[in-house]
Amino acid sequence: METVKNFLKQKATNLRIHSILATSEAGSGHPTTCLSAADIVSALFFHAMRYDCSEPQHPNNDRFVLSKGHAAPLLYAAYAEAGIIPAEELCTLRQIDSILEGHPTPRFAWTEVATGSLGQGLSLGLGMALNGKYLDESDYRVYVLLGDGETAEGGVWEAAALASYYKLNNLIGIVDVNALGQSQRTMYAFDVDTYCQRFEAFGWQTVGIDGHNFEEILPALAQAKASTDKPTMIVAKTFKGKGVSFLEDADNWHGKALAKGEELDQALAELGPLQDIPVQIESPMPVVVEVDPETECEPPDYPPDEEVATRGGYGVGLAKLGSANPNVVALDGDTKNSTYAEQFMELHPNRYFEMFIAEQNLVGAGIGLAKRGKIPFVSTFAAFLSRAYDQIRMSAISQANIKYAGSHCGVSIGEDGPSQMGLEDIAMFRAIPEAVVLYPSDAVSAERLVAEAAAHEGIVYLRTSRPKTVILYDADERFPIGGCKVVQQSREDKVTVVAAGVALHEALAAHETLAAEGIAVRVIDLYSIKPVDTEALMAAAAETNNILITVEDHYPEGGLGDAVLDAVATEDVRVHKLAVTGIPRSGKPEELLEYHGISASAIVQKVKDVIA
Amino acid sequence: METVKNFLKQKATNLRIHSILATSEAGSGHPTTCLSAADIVSALFFHAMRYDCSEPQHPNNDRFVLSKGHAAPLLYAAYAEAGIIPAEELCTLRQIDSILEGHPTPRFAWTEVATGSLGQGLSLGLGMALNGKYLDESDYRVYVLLGDGETAEGGVWEAAALASYYKLNNLIGIVDVNALGQSQRTMYAFDVDTYCQRFEAFGWQTVGIDGHNFEEILPALAQAKASTDKPTMIVAKTFKGKGVSFLEDADNWHGKALAKGEELDQALAELGPLQDIPVQIESPMPVVVEVDPETECEPPDYPPDEEVATRGGYGVGLAKLGSANPNVVALDGDTKNSTYAEQFMELHPNRYFEMFIAEQNLVGAGIGLAKRGKIPFVSTFAAFLSRAYDQIRMSAISQANIKYAGSHCGVSIGEDGPSQMGLEDIAMFRAIPEAVVLYPSDAVSAERLVAEAAAHEGIVYLRTSRPKTVILYDADERFPIGGCKVVQQSREDKVTVVAAGVALHEALAAHETLAAEGIAVRVIDLYSIKPVDTEALMAAAAETNNILITVEDHYPEGGLGDAVLDAVATEDVRVHKLAVTGIPRSGKPEELLEYHGISASAIVQKVKDVIA
Repeated sequence: METVKNFLKQKATNLRIHSILATSEAGSGHPTTCLSAADIVSALFFHAMRYDCSEPQHPNNDRFVLSKGHAAPLLYAAYAEAGIIPAEELCTLRQIDSILEGHPTPRFAWTEVATGSLGQGLSLGLGMALNGKYLDESDYRVYVLLGDGETAEGGVWEAAALASYYKLNNLIGIVDVNALGQSQRTMYAFDVDTYCQRFEAFGWQTVGIDGHNFEEILPALAQAKASTDKPTMIVAKTFKGKGVSFLEDADNWHGKALAKGEELDQALAELGPLQDIPVQIESPMPVVVEVDPETECEPPDYPPDEEVATRGGYGVGLAKLGSANPNVVALDGDTKNSTYAEQFMELHPNRYFEMFIAEQNLVGAGIGLAKRGKIPFVSTFAAFLSRAYDQIRMSAISQANIKYAGSHCGVSIGEDGPSQMGLEDIAMFRAIPEAVVLYPSDAVSAERLVAEAAAHEGIVYLRTSRPKTVILYDADERFPIGGCKVVQQSREDKVTVVAAGVALHEALAAHETLAAEGIAVRVIDLYSIKPVDTEALMAAAAETNNILITVEDHYPEGGLGDAVLDAVATEDVRVHKLAVTGIPRSGKPEELLEYHGISASAIVQKVKDVIA
Repeated sequence: METVKNFLKQKATNLRIHSILATSEAGSGHPTTCLSAADIVSALFFHAMRYDCSEPQHPNNDRFVLSKGHAAPLLYAAYAEAGIIPAEELCTLRQIDSILEGHPTPRFAWTEVATGSLGQGLSLGLGMALNGKYLDESDYRVYVLLGDGETAEGGVWEAAALASYYKLNNLIGIVDVNALGQSQRTMYAFDVDTYCQRFEAFGWQTVGIDGHNFEEILPALAQAKASTDKPTMIVAKTFKGKGVSFLEDADNWHGKALAKGEELDQALAELGPLQDIPVQIESPMPVVVEVDPETECEPPDYPPDEEVATRGGYGVGLAKLGSANPNVVALDGDTKNSTYAEQFMELHPNRYFEMFIAEQNLVGAGIGLAKRGKIPFVSTFAAFLSRAYDQIRMSAISQANIKYAGSHCGVSIGEDGPSQMGLEDIAMFRAIPEAVVLYPSDAVSAERLVAEAAAHEGIVYLRTSRPKTVILYDADERFPIGGCKVVQQSREDKVTVVAAGVALHEALAAHETLAAEGIAVRVIDLYSIKPVDTEALMAAAAETNNILITVEDHYPEGGLGDAVLDAVATEDVRVHKLAVTGIPRSGKPEELLEYHGISASAIVQKVKDVIA
């Protein structure tokens, strides 16, 4: 123990030195938060964890999630001390051309998932642990380092509940209880017992330790590893700024780098010199590669007269996709009988995870699964995806290959009323960089777009509706991302109506009414809202007096209408938007479409107003 | 006890009958979830709670939050049985012209706050409890009825932690443990002990009871009322569908109304007839009205050469507002030394609430405070408001007079990197119906807009920046909501550049560069993004070749550019958008502005491209 202890102690000192040097060089960063966790990280990286130093993505590597992402310099220092990156690189921290960013992102190959928005790491780790225990059947463990202040985040407790429910003994958390948040003391200061009691109440094994004493850290990690059916939370009492006298537990040092010169020199003097100490990292188990083949999805198969909701098409499509692609997994937030994710569950129960009413964790776990090579389809009501918008935002920074499905969009859900209506979800997802936003209008396209989503590398959002609608397309129709369908056209078209989902059906009804009055309009199904088919929109506009009318079961801002506006922004095309104005209310679906101005008759009226 | 018990039992039966009748009439709704909670609601409304039946907004009424909002019919039935609304009205449930919606909204005057998105009620109640205990110093209590499935939501645990931290003995929760979620059994089924242990670990007094036995319900409520320093959670074991044999604890009945005819008749036969039983509701304490006068805010007062960040202007402005308006309160999520809410805290400590790193609860509590007549300013980093987007969405449905402030917007925060950058926040808030979205460009306008926000009735979002910028405006300049400022203009302007925040300063620098090259451009400060000054934009476009260039430190979708596009959508105005494309990264602020194409030189180049 003594040799090991001294070895880890010196490595920890090296980590401290690197953290201080890097942040001082950058002129910004969070050195004191690195200092409190340095001993823990030393024990993890140079003793407890097994990983292949040449392969960040080795499927059996133990995984590490830095939930307290602002300790990034410590993470990078660990990889330098493991011999994976040159120590000189550490001083490029935060520079515009460095892979070592202020908070970890996948630009640094060893970052499992991007962090920095607190309270998400445990969910991310949970996803990886689910994968390890139930999908890959690998023996890897997932270590998540949390700050104490961040355990105020509800996301931590969503993950805590699910982790014990799923008996994730391969998930090991460490809370760094340094008692200082960003702007003041945390709620519980150094009260380690309270943290232990809470995680215990949530079904975890807990161990309270002195986070600077390897004689407590190492046995705690051993105890954690020995667990057979519970996740473990190690609650470590530490001092922010530990190792430097004037920083230790001192106020007002959060997020401050030491100034070069006297301040920095004094700190370095106290820590002593860097010592070159080679390490031997335990290797992970070798990979047993079993690649199940992918096949084509079964095609859509609806009787032509059947009315099927697009959420129904999603359910069927997802189940078929699961049969065709063994990497596809599904997660849902206790809405599977509404989103129809249950059809996947019934066919592929070992690849379905019920995540209960906890959307932050639903998304976070999905991100973790995506980073472990699965293709997760994460579903709930569109409205409730707003509960996880921070996690969705971070999934883009993590470059996660994750698919989101939001059902019950718009006022067309009817009597349940506004709390259940997704009316800002297109705006949410359009604002996610590089996200694909798809909005099928019938069950055939819904099925096809599920497959397109899986084939696409990156974030995809699928928006589905509650009401049953007619089948619009032949079973062999294809729906490439970035395309659209011109569903009605003639040489006499006066304007083009652009819509999707329920509103498309209203547009088709309006087309019929107008045709009977001798007014021809073009109708476009804009099933791909991002990327949008700019070419087709411009072509249609050019042939219809440069007038587009957009219709959507969504608020006016940020949705389909704005996507169309954006596509034609630099041209002389006029766009008239119909959308849901005001705060919606309960009522029958057809009444609400009328009341909120997106019904067939509203479209008819707008066409007439515009061509007058 | 026996008389009271029988009285409450029959009232509960009436509640059950009403719930079933109303949902069957509507053809939709959640009767079984009403049935599990009917006894609890009877005890609350007809025994434990004090309220003035003629005054829903009486400041000293006990308050009730139906966190499990889908039990709305039960809530309405309670008010009918209290004699407040006519029983006949109950059968208008969910109709388009009824105030009794599918989930409660303030269209029904007795709805404290809109619910229906699970896991938010405890935060809403916490806000009301904070108000009662620390601001109004009223003796009212706040009762929150939660479902068991919804305690998986992290928001519940954020509220739980804060409630015990703030010793909110006036907050009483009841969890209705009926063991059935929407699509399956909950994680813990009838394990009441687990719920008790968890809330105890979070510092609550807990009582486990049979939720259908008044001999346990009433003493539990008495025990809760007697608490002097802890909130209380009553954990009630119940059966979904209780009172109707074929519904009790039965699968697949969530969200299903009984069919009229045999099904309904059988249920009603089992429950017996409605009994007309008058009630006597205990009155609240009389109001002692002390209205502190409002005064004008002290004007901005910056030395002309000083550089001040707009977040700095927010801090100063909020503190001044606190001095002028006694109803203003402030809440922050452990970022007060970054958002500068700390300046309000220092001046008005009794009206500042530190909410720690828990943004869902930060917003939920703010909504609760708003509904109790305060004007809450809720602040954190703009990026972290995404953590509470569901709560923000619901605040609109609640018609809450709440102000949101998001700092550290855009890439201009620099080295901390993308996890800390608010880049989709304008899109988020634009999509909120009737929200006002303000984006000051200097400290003077930031201060003024804080006051404008307070004067405005409804949701306001203020977006502030990290970097220091020059003062643009005189201290006596005014900034009406819906206006803008033309900060540079001439008769030779070739195009108009529309910007705000940091990008406005880049636009002004570009203006200078272009002027030196003989190219004149108009520059507009679009400090009011919603509502937007359509008239001014059209006027500027008309005088500058119908070309607008927008620039924003925000993603391209949903932000300032889209607001401008929307304003000129139906006209022949061309809009060229500059915004942050791709996933941002760490770097110096000025480098990032350049890298992401929103710098002065990018604007110069775009102007030249466009006029070529």
